[in-house]
Amino acid sequence: MLISNKVRISSVIEGSWTYFLIDFLTCSVTYALSEYFNIINIPIPALLPTILGTALAFFIGFNNNQAYDRWWEARKIWGGLVNDSRSWARQLLFLKKTTEEIQGEDRNFIEILVRRHIGFVYALNRGLRKSAETDYLNFLSDDDFEYLRHESNKANAVLNLQTRDLNEWYQKGKVDGFQFMQLNQMLINFCDHMGKSERIANTVFPTTYNYYTRVFVWIFIVCSTLVTAESIGVWSIVFGTLIGYVFLTIHKIGVSLLNPFEMLPTGIPLNLISRTIEINLLEMLRDKNIPKQVESVNEEYVL
Amino acid sequence: MLISNKVRISSVIEGSWTYFLIDFLTCSVTYALSEYFNIINIPIPALLPTILGTALAFFIGFNNNQAYDRWWEARKIWGGLVNDSRSWARQLLFLKKTTEEIQGEDRNFIEILVRRHIGFVYALNRGLRKSAETDYLNFLSDDDFEYLRHESNKANAVLNLQTRDLNEWYQKGKVDGFQFMQLNQMLINFCDHMGKSERIANTVFPTTYNYYTRVFVWIFIVCSTLVTAESIGVWSIVFGTLIGYVFLTIHKIGVSLLNPFEMLPTGIPLNLISRTIEINLLEMLRDKNIPKQVESVNEEYVL
Amino acid sequence: MLISNKVRISSVIEGSWTYFLIDFLTCSVTYALSEYFNIINIPIPALLPTILGTALAFFIGFNNNQAYDRWWEARKIWGGLVNDSRSWARQLLFLKKTTEEIQGEDRNFIEILVRRHIGFVYALNRGLRKSAETDYLNFLSDDDFEYLRHESNKANAVLNLQTRDLNEWYQKGKVDGFQFMQLNQMLINFCDHMGKSERIANTVFPTTYNYYTRVFVWIFIVCSTLVTAESIGVWSIVFGTLIGYVFLTIHKIGVSLLNPFEMLPTGIPLNLISRTIEINLLEMLRDKNIPKQVESVNEEYVL
Amino acid sequence: MLISNKVRISSVIEGSWTYFLIDFLTCSVTYALSEYFNIINIPIPALLPTILGTALAFFIGFNNNQAYDRWWEARKIWGGLVNDSRSWARQLLFLKKTTEEIQGEDRNFIEILVRRHIGFVYALNRGLRKSAETDYLNFLSDDDFEYLRHESNKANAVLNLQTRDLNEWYQKGKVDGFQFMQLNQMLINFCDHMGKSERIANTVFPTTYNYYTRVFVWIFIVCSTLVTAESIGVWSIVFGTLIGYVFLTIHKIGVSLLNPFEMLPTGIPLNLISRTIEINLLEMLRDKNIPKQVESVNEEYVL
Amino acid sequence: MLISNKVRISSVIEGSWTYFLIDFLTCSVTYALSEYFNIINIPIPALLPTILGTALAFFIGFNNNQAYDRWWEARKIWGGLVNDSRSWARQLLFLKKTTEEIQGEDRNFIEILVRRHIGFVYALNRGLRKSAETDYLNFLSDDDFEYLRHESNKANAVLNLQTRDLNEWYQKGKVDGFQFMQLNQMLINFCDHMGKSERIANTVFPTTYNYYTRVFVWIFIVCSTLVTAESIGVWSIVFGTLIGYVFLTIHKIGVSLLNPFEMLPTGIPLNLISRTIEINLLEMLRDKNIPKQVESVNEEYVL
Repeated sequence: MLISNKVRISSVIEGSWTYFLIDFLTCSVTYALSEYFNIINIPIPALLPTILGTALAFFIGFNNNQAYDRWWEARKIWGGLVNDSRSWARQLLFLKKTTEEIQGEDRNFIEILVRRHIGFVYALNRGLRKSAETDYLNFLSDDDFEYLRHESNKANAVLNLQTRDLNEWYQKGKVDGFQFMQLNQMLINFCDHMGKSERIANTVFPTTYNYYTRVFVWIFIVCSTLVTAESIGVWSIVFGTLIGYVFLTIHKIGVSLLNPFEMLPTGIPLNLISRTIEINLLEMLRDKNIPKQVESVNEEYVL
Repeated sequence: MLISNKVRISSVIEGSWTYFLIDFLTCSVTYALSEYFNIINIPIPALLPTILGTALAFFIGFNNNQAYDRWWEARKIWGGLVNDSRSWARQLLFLKKTTEEIQGEDRNFIEILVRRHIGFVYALNRGLRKSAETDYLNFLSDDDFEYLRHESNKANAVLNLQTRDLNEWYQKGKVDGFQFMQLNQMLINFCDHMGKSERIANTVFPTTYNYYTRVFVWIFIVCSTLVTAESIGVWSIVFGTLIGYVFLTIHKIGVSLLNPFEMLPTGIPLNLISRTIEINLLEMLRDKNIPKQVESVNEEYVL
Repeated sequence: MLISNKVRISSVIEGSWTYFLIDFLTCSVTYALSEYFNIINIPIPALLPTILGTALAFFIGFNNNQAYDRWWEARKIWGGLVNDSRSWARQLLFLKKTTEEIQGEDRNFIEILVRRHIGFVYALNRGLRKSAETDYLNFLSDDDFEYLRHESNKANAVLNLQTRDLNEWYQKGKVDGFQFMQLNQMLINFCDHMGKSERIANTVFPTTYNYYTRVFVWIFIVCSTLVTAESIGVWSIVFGTLIGYVFLTIHKIGVSLLNPFEMLPTGIPLNLISRTIEINLLEMLRDKNIPKQVESVNEEYVL
Repeated sequence: MLISNKVRISSVIEGSWTYFLIDFLTCSVTYALSEYFNIINIPIPALLPTILGTALAFFIGFNNNQAYDRWWEARKIWGGLVNDSRSWARQLLFLKKTTEEIQGEDRNFIEILVRRHIGFVYALNRGLRKSAETDYLNFLSDDDFEYLRHESNKANAVLNLQTRDLNEWYQKGKVDGFQFMQLNQMLINFCDHMGKSERIANTVFPTTYNYYTRVFVWIFIVCSTLVTAESIGVWSIVFGTLIGYVFLTIHKIGVSLLNPFEMLPTGIPLNLISRTIEINLLEMLRDKNIPKQVESVNEEYVL
Repeated sequence: MLISNKVRISSVIEGSWTYFLIDFLTCSVTYALSEYFNIINIPIPALLPTILGTALAFFIGFNNNQAYDRWWEARKIWGGLVNDSRSWARQLLFLKKTTEEIQGEDRNFIEILVRRHIGFVYALNRGLRKSAETDYLNFLSDDDFEYLRHESNKANAVLNLQTRDLNEWYQKGKVDGFQFMQLNQMLINFCDHMGKSERIANTVFPTTYNYYTRVFVWIFIVCSTLVTAESIGVWSIVFGTLIGYVFLTIHKIGVSLLNPFEMLPTGIPLNLISRTIEINLLEMLRDKNIPKQVESVNEEYVL
């Protein structure tokens, strides 16, 4: 997530100089060729870039809309995960409270369920970002680790363990039916958040949209240069480059939001959110070692 | 689902050469006729393609929006099916866990309910794609098969069996009321996912939209050729073809998403998702024969 | 619901020849008058149709969006009705299953509740389409008929009967609290589907939108004819008619979706959906007389 | 809610003649001044109205979208209120049904809860429309009236009474836990419908949108007149007025939907819907005095 | 929330004079430079501002849409908080009602839970606005304060206390399972409202959108001035300034809605809503000291 409202000129240039250059070269070559082959005398109608421009504006606008929607949906899913994580821990923590604090075995059991949930969040985070890191194991016991070895989807397997233990407590009468239903509902919700995240991460946005957008933008750039070549001569390179830069940039912004779970500055800050959950839950457990919040990179973005 | 970000030029050409050719021929014939009948001297106002172009951009944009929404809704429905399938298996699997593993009859019963659910997923998949394949029978017993024979909607009939058996267990006291409610809710959800999928598969997008879009695009192409015929002569064929190609392509992309459950490269990868569910559920059952994930076709798309 | 992808030219002409003719006459009269009164010499600026065209494209686009949304929402509601109907029958049918089939009084009772629900669906169908048909009575007993006589909203009254009988069974202990809650929830859902359908059927789309759209389109047609009268003479009639035809058609398509529950080829196929529910439910009851699916009209649409 | 599809010319003129006149005067004064001060010779570029027109079309289109969404959301909320009102009455009415009709105290109690709900609907209606009418008191007892005196939000206070009585019945064992949960859920829903209605009624649409839209439309009108003054002379007044009329009208239509709960012909027909609920519920109670449905005003709209 | 429909000219000028001035200066400098360097003779094609204008209209329209959606979603969340707050208090207040009023310890307990909820609302309000005010402590006991000291997220910690006490009452048998479930659900809802608010407050809208919008608008302004410099001379400054003013203003309106929880006139009136909840809940408790509603600032907006 980009956090600084003042995007630095340097990082803008860094991000866009390659396609700016290609844009400029394309326009220059187009102009040179049109001069050389005398195409300049063929009066390409001004209609062409006007109509193409309108069509492209619609098309790129459509792409941006869908990209933003994916991004915002992704953010909502992880927001829902934060909410349910807090409710999960809260309900467990005060489950057996009569007047005194819960102690002994019960307290132990609750700690396991809460810590293991932090493990679930990190496992999901790593899975979505296709990272090999296994820091989620810090929140799991050795038995849990053994169980996970047989499963390909680690986060899903952690939910199995949570369900197993919750049912065990239910069988032992430590939680009653009403409490069981609401806690079990939380586990179903976690499964939903996981599946929804995977849906966004694994569903490729119809590639034809991006592909043809790029094709049409380049056609548009060439046409724009040609159409003005006769009337304004070499200045048509400036004209074409400028128009092209605007359309390319808007297109790129949309594309940068399409895969919100990737390790990109414009993505959803999974690390930040995971850490927030960790801090919230450990504070609830009155843990002594609360980790620090994730820091931003150059005060520009968080991951 | 298309998976490769680099759409190959060859497959683009393959996909669009027919209507590109028709587009080109139309423009050529238009130009020839206008020359021959001297229509070229009737100065068709440049206003015509401008206004038509704007109107068409709106119209095609509208179609693309609705098509994408159908596609994404279809993806969400099957994403929900994945989530609920996992929750279904998970809840069953740890239902009677006290401390030791479930054995004997109970284990058997759970296996039946989980495997039969995989059968439900495949039956729904085949039904939506109007395929005659009956591979879903692999996950059903002979009695189940007998029951299905009398029903036209196979997936729906599988849900009947699941409901029957769940109620039987409830009557026998193997699940209590709270567990029954949550498991039954899963069956209601499956019925919803099924019905929603059928709704998208069976509801034809208002055909007038596609029909008139095509009519208007061709009118637009002819007009664009005519309007520039006088000023730029034979180059108007290039102009008309180009403009037409852009509008036709955008329209086609939308159309290719309209029926997301068909066996198309741009459709929802039902086979992939069904297999994912199968793998997840069999892993949970600690089955020895986990099938492989569905492979992509030419690394271009999965079905 | 239109079902044929190949709209026949004949039905297109049938559907649009009246306003095409009016369109043509308007343009002709406009041209004749402008000639006669010499308005032709007043150079109406080309700006006018351009700006009006853009504004109209937005306006008609807006109308089409809302119309489509009403149509799709209507389809979703009846899709939800299908799903809940199946779940309703399924839950009832396996309610008291121990090992043997339910027989005698209980079976009778279940049959009544399932068949009466089919009656509910048809009563709602007829009510929404303001039809006087009373074929829904076939699914009701004489006592039910007596009850319905005092009520103006027949579908709503059928739900009263269902609620009454469900509560009776609950009092008798034939269903327990958990089952009662889920079955009662289905009845609440049916009431929601009914109310939502009535909302769409009875809420007139703000008439000002359609009225002014038509006014503006005709102003636009007259202006378009006038603006080109000087430069292209009598050809301006063709120009005006063409532009007008495109805008009128797009507008008409939207309007045809505005009232999705009416007996129109473009409406939601309530008869088809009602029959689907009937077939599904009768099959579940293992009824011998399964009716045929509703047939399409000329293979063009179903009602 | 406007109900007549044929908007009468007279009411259109009535509704729009003031701003039409102002529009006309503005254009006339603009033209006169430009003549007098010789501004007519400054060739204002045609670009200005084109670009402004496109920008305005977007802006007004945005406003219309949001206005329609508020209107439709308001309609949905009151549609939900209808549905839940029916379910509320239905569940109460058949609560204690065994085989004979409920009589005596219990019947009395149910009547109170159902009638008081009608009072709730009218109290909410009056509150939203800031009306001082107290006709909702007809559905309440004297004790209820006493309770309401201390509360500023009458509709909310009625819900307190409903909750109090429902809990009383629950304590007495007249409804069991499952029934209590579903009935209580209805009361929570009513509270939601109430709060959502208040949200729409009390949240002013960001005033800057309407304000600047108006400013820009007038700038646009003046520019359009000036830009054509040189080429078409005094006809530019007609031109400016026409363009202005279209944009102003579209803007006004949107504005008329912004506050859907006000006593406007274009608003949501709260009186009609309240009466529908009243009729439905009284019919269920088999009341003898069913009031008539609210009548339309001049067959043009209902309130 | 802006409340006055008549935005005062003074406050408009106040709000926009800076960028109006910069806009004017930019156009003047552009014109001066083009004169001085004779750029005026390079005929920049009119195409440039037309195409840029359309693209920008789409882009700014997109930004406004997303901004408005954030604003409206924020309003919905706090509207939901109002609804659930009322339901929370209502359910507690009539929890143990048989026929007489609740007295003594039970009444005490209920008062604590209701007042503490007001504290939750204020704590959330302050947290979202990053205010250091601790007025929420007025609604908490000393013990509560002690508990809060260890937690960084105060609002979340208040929910812990509510959960703890609700579970205590449940253990003591003062609420039964059904009531517990519904009350606990309210606490889960509060947690959701809190998390959703934090999501909107802490998720920066992709900064690239705002950054590039500004860049493109300034490019657009410079181009518009240059393009008309030749034909209309020094009047091009007026032209450029006007066009720029319109686009800049529309952009600024959108930006002002992007962070709806900040202390801005255009933000969501958290203070007003919090006070509404406070008044509603205290009235229910029949408290003697009902505070006044928050007053508007200059009758222009409420915070």
